[in-house]
Amino acid sequence: MEAEKNVPLYESERIDDLLTHEMKIIQSHEVFCFSMDAVLLARFASVPKRGRVLDMCTGNGAIPLIMTTRSPEAVFEGIEIQPRLYDMASRNVQLNGLQERLTMHLGDVKEAVGLFGYGKFDLITCNPPYMPAASGEQNLSEHFAIARHEILLSLEDVIRVGSQLLKNGGKLALVHRSTRLIDIVTLMRTYHIEPKRMRLVYPRRDAEPNMVLIEGIRNGKPELRIQPPLIVYENGEEYCEELQEIYFGRRDSLA
Amino acid sequence: MEAEKNVPLYESERIDDLLTHEMKIIQSHEVFCFSMDAVLLARFASVPKRGRVLDMCTGNGAIPLIMTTRSPEAVFEGIEIQPRLYDMASRNVQLNGLQERLTMHLGDVKEAVGLFGYGKFDLITCNPPYMPAASGEQNLSEHFAIARHEILLSLEDVIRVGSQLLKNGGKLALVHRSTRLIDIVTLMRTYHIEPKRMRLVYPRRDAEPNMVLIEGIRNGKPELRIQPPLIVYENGEEYCEELQEIYFGRRDSLA
Repeated sequence: MEAEKNVPLYESERIDDLLTHEMKIIQSHEVFCFSMDAVLLARFASVPKRGRVLDMCTGNGAIPLIMTTRSPEAVFEGIEIQPRLYDMASRNVQLNGLQERLTMHLGDVKEAVGLFGYGKFDLITCNPPYMPAASGEQNLSEHFAIARHEILLSLEDVIRVGSQLLKNGGKLALVHRSTRLIDIVTLMRTYHIEPKRMRLVYPRRDAEPNMVLIEGIRNGKPELRIQPPLIVYENGEEYCEELQEIYFGRRDSLA
Repeated sequence: MEAEKNVPLYESERIDDLLTHEMKIIQSHEVFCFSMDAVLLARFASVPKRGRVLDMCTGNGAIPLIMTTRSPEAVFEGIEIQPRLYDMASRNVQLNGLQERLTMHLGDVKEAVGLFGYGKFDLITCNPPYMPAASGEQNLSEHFAIARHEILLSLEDVIRVGSQLLKNGGKLALVHRSTRLIDIVTLMRTYHIEPKRMRLVYPRRDAEPNMVLIEGIRNGKPELRIQPPLIVYENGEEYCEELQEIYFGRRDSLA
């Protein structure tokens, strides 16, 4: 790719395939790598045909990068609090030549209303830190710790600010551990986001789910649609057909 | 069965197999028949080894009848507002010789605290009316209408009264349409019942679920365990193995 020539790589970084539309992504196993969770959220969210989309806690930008392929006319933004990741996300925009459609912001989600104003977005996505502030794994690098633990941002912050930033009728789509489902849906209702669509991700047919994908509508009417189970390893060690189609770009969205 | 001789049958009634432990049940296609939902709830609920169990809106008593087979020492009660169904439920207790372990009450769940007192039960189950008061299908008999529609009892009544009747640490287990999940869990939290365990019932592998089984604990700590998907027709037209085992009595509980 010609674009690669102009984008610097720093120590420990490498360019990986984003596995869709021949997109590339800079990541680093020492600092930040996108996960399956990000891919699933980018495919699950209801990306509008037109309008303005924000990814909160965007990391290296995987979620909005993938979402650009799903809507040629929408405009995308990302916000990330860590300068090192914001810088990586900005280079990923350049690397894929998306400067006209995707803008990265360095900043704190808790102050995002000051940055953007109330009621500006049609869709907000977030793959937030999953783990409580003071739980294991904190012998990770600070970068990973902030991305994974609720140190700088709580689940309630994500949903409160998301609601403030959304237009009436706008959508908030999250991926999270399924053990937190009750907190997620009660906080959504508290902040006037009605959960409308949900999908559970089960590692295997006979296993408990480990992730939930959920989308709510600001001031939506109550009634939840739960989609078919997403069973990651349907037959032993291979991804299920739906995920293979997602990863190899033959399918645009989840169910 | 000898017991059958002493129990009268009224017009339109017949004695069916309860498909477990050779139990029998009186039902009537004009008045009330138990459904798969009742069987699943009776197998899903955490029946205590000892203690006191109440089934609200018990209909012809299928749920507590099945639950008696899961715990030899617990005592069971049922409450039903319709005299015709209460009478059927009482005859079902006799029919199965369970007078010592299962007691039926004629009464309104909304007044159950007056009947039983606060904080008396270890487990409460309920397969409540699913449909809003003023929705279709009301050209059914009055018996079916009351059992299926929120005419005499709302979802909020079920959860509020359930919470009042439960001991601290007691459990409330419900089966309901999965579209109502958000109402169920937010009402549970409002009335100090923390949703702790949930299972979704999917008709087929690639279908949306139509039912949710959910159990909460009075004053429990937040963290939801979601169990593996229950896929009713796993391979075409036959019940999945787990359901066949449930129906033919080789398995006691759901996952």
